Amino acid sequence: MAWINENYLKLKAGYLFPEISRRVEKFSRENPDKKIIRMGIGDVTKPLVASVVRAFEEGVREMATAATFRGYGPEQGYAFLRELVAQWDYQSRGVQISADDIFISDGSKCDTGNILEIFGNQNKIGICDPVYPVYVDSAVMGGRTGAVQENGYFDGLYYLPCGEESHFLPKIPEQKLDLVFLCFPNNPTGQTATREYLTQWVDYARENDCILLYDAAYEAFIRDVEIPHSIFEIPGAKSVAMEFRSFSKTAGFTGTRCAFTVVPQELEARNSQGEKFPIRPLWSRRQTTKFNGVSYPVQKAAAAVYSTEGRKEVAEVIDYYLENARIMKASLLRMGFTVYGGKNAPYIWLKTLRGMKSWEFFDLLLKEAGVVGTPGAGFGPAGEGFFRLSAFAERESVEEGLLRISKIQ
Amino acid sequence: MAWINENYLKLKAGYLFPEISRRVEKFSRENPDKKIIRMGIGDVTKPLVASVVRAFEEGVREMATAATFRGYGPEQGYAFLRELVAQWDYQSRGVQISADDIFISDGSKCDTGNILEIFGNQNKIGICDPVYPVYVDSAVMGGRTGAVQENGYFDGLYYLPCGEESHFLPKIPEQKLDLVFLCFPNNPTGQTATREYLTQWVDYARENDCILLYDAAYEAFIRDVEIPHSIFEIPGAKSVAMEFRSFSKTAGFTGTRCAFTVVPQELEARNSQGEKFPIRPLWSRRQTTKFNGVSYPVQKAAAAVYSTEGRKEVAEVIDYYLENARIMKASLLRMGFTVYGGKNAPYIWLKTLRGMKSWEFFDLLLKEAGVVGTPGAGFGPAGEGFFRLSAFAERESVEEGLLRISKIQ
Repeated sequence: MAWINENYLKLKAGYLFPEISRRVEKFSRENPDKKIIRMGIGDVTKPLVASVVRAFEEGVREMATAATFRGYGPEQGYAFLRELVAQWDYQSRGVQISADDIFISDGSKCDTGNILEIFGNQNKIGICDPVYPVYVDSAVMGGRTGAVQENGYFDGLYYLPCGEESHFLPKIPEQKLDLVFLCFPNNPTGQTATREYLTQWVDYARENDCILLYDAAYEAFIRDVEIPHSIFEIPGAKSVAMEFRSFSKTAGFTGTRCAFTVVPQELEARNSQGEKFPIRPLWSRRQTTKFNGVSYPVQKAAAAVYSTEGRKEVAEVIDYYLENARIMKASLLRMGFTVYGGKNAPYIWLKTLRGMKSWEFFDLLLKEAGVVGTPGAGFGPAGEGFFRLSAFAERESVEEGLLRISKIQ
Repeated sequence: MAWINENYLKLKAGYLFPEISRRVEKFSRENPDKKIIRMGIGDVTKPLVASVVRAFEEGVREMATAATFRGYGPEQGYAFLRELVAQWDYQSRGVQISADDIFISDGSKCDTGNILEIFGNQNKIGICDPVYPVYVDSAVMGGRTGAVQENGYFDGLYYLPCGEESHFLPKIPEQKLDLVFLCFPNNPTGQTATREYLTQWVDYARENDCILLYDAAYEAFIRDVEIPHSIFEIPGAKSVAMEFRSFSKTAGFTGTRCAFTVVPQELEARNSQGEKFPIRPLWSRRQTTKFNGVSYPVQKAAAAVYSTEGRKEVAEVIDYYLENARIMKASLLRMGFTVYGGKNAPYIWLKTLRGMKSWEFFDLLLKEAGVVGTPGAGFGPAGEGFFRLSAFAERESVEEGLLRISKIQ
């Protein structure tokens, strides 16, 4: 009989968000009349903007006639989109990233989940706690950890606590790590990173020959001009970092699927003999062998995000979510909650009531208020006692949700 | 410094199809006036059919208004599509596959490349030779092989020769293998498998507790009623096989991206203590953690393939390609080539001229006839001396290509 990959058995019962769905579905079945307000999974609610829809439709129409039909595209993504990304997301900020450094994909979850494939098993991997669960789960599935300990940590990973006392920013490690996942604006805490702070990480990486796996999926929510949108805004970062970006939250593509990963030409790692190899050809080989590129009409739609109209429309949608976040934060503070995030980020990170466990608070909020949030413990042991609320909602839902929460106090 | 995954260094210089592209681009640059006829990569040329385009457009329009907008979908795919697949591809042939067994994805290349992740490293993997390169390359990248030997075989894989003398069908192994990749109708040889032959494989798998990884991406080209479209048409297969299917060649989705994998509930494998575990939850966990579902409008478009009109339109396109294959085979036979495949399959597998090496024949055909095919050696050592031509082309290109080939004789 064939053998399973036993590393899967080390994982907890389910991925966080399916578990939330299961609890919500159960509640809905038992309370069919209760209107549920979802501030849980962090999914956008605004439709695609007009210029994106027009380009998407145009892309579909091109697929309808032989003269403009497109079959297999380049696995790395069409040059027209990679060039726009390089220009608008990087060169316009004075960062010299070229179209060749960009790999278009169908999601940052896929890319951050798959990226460890190109790195050896001997790497010491640094993981923030709390953290987006995909980094840990994919490391476990890939056999890069031992068993889970009683405290919820997996043997073999190097956890970087990001608690209240450190302002939800991991301290620069004292030991040598080889790969470190960072995420700013942070999911789940909503914390952002200043230029000075990121410079410390780049310095650390350069001194320790470490590679930073920088998840910037929420960069579009940064409004403060002092906060970098990209790790590559830090001098020297191109030789020590790769970056993950997505159209999901930037342009409402959670159901449309487009993202990209930036792997600068300068980035290198070594083999066991110490010889250096560039990373970009490895990721290219991974993608050409195991991925077939993003749907052409979707890439065409993503390109429209960079048009004059598209940039304006998308910024308006983000402003709307940011205003939700502002309202939520102000209102929750008024109710007496301890609240973090919610500025330059779509997530509110609040302390549960009376030191409740976060799943207990989840059940309370669902039962008493019909509001779905995300239990902090789902993001790691240090998330215990916290709760994530997402600003991706319609204004009236936000207001209704806040009103209901105020009543359970 | 971080360490690379050194298994990548075992791979040959490039994935087959990018290498072909490089040679063709070079030739085009040097011969800008020469019109190239592409029968190489096996990419479709006919546009999406009308009913698929309509559904695709409708899906895009739904994304344009809040009331019908869709954010994150189920990672496994929408139930509306999984139910159609179960009904039309399986239940209508008397095969009891349910919607829960279906996992919608963005490509069979992704699925066949990722599937080994859920299996342990100790499995003995059987690979046909010649074969679609992704199975071997992803096994190498995943550290499931040793180095490449001088004969082109990787240590640690179990090769099943499919040469002329065995009618391009692998012999049932005498040893115990744990996982075997099979592909029918075959890429690259165009060979199909009869019910009797597949029954031998299912019997082998049942006797040896082996799992068959059955790639049926070309099943839509089967016109002979005697030839099974699915491994699950063979009694007992549900406990020993999973199946990979795609809309790429069935409905011209190479640039649109949609496929699916079938993992029956009955399928099990063991851990190192010999305990049995169902495979479906493992693949589900892999997909929910590292994949985010297929673009909603694309799934909507794929669903239209099963409409009354869609089935008719898609069948007409396939008939067109099959007629190409028939013309090609007849014509090449007349020229004196030894030709296989081309019936119930979109691929022609021909012997090179005068025992030439297959890359040499590739260069000759490109230079003398401006025709791009695929060198058999790109599919494995036993492909040497053979050449794949694809029937995915416009009729006039096919005729022009054949005329040009006839002149280099």
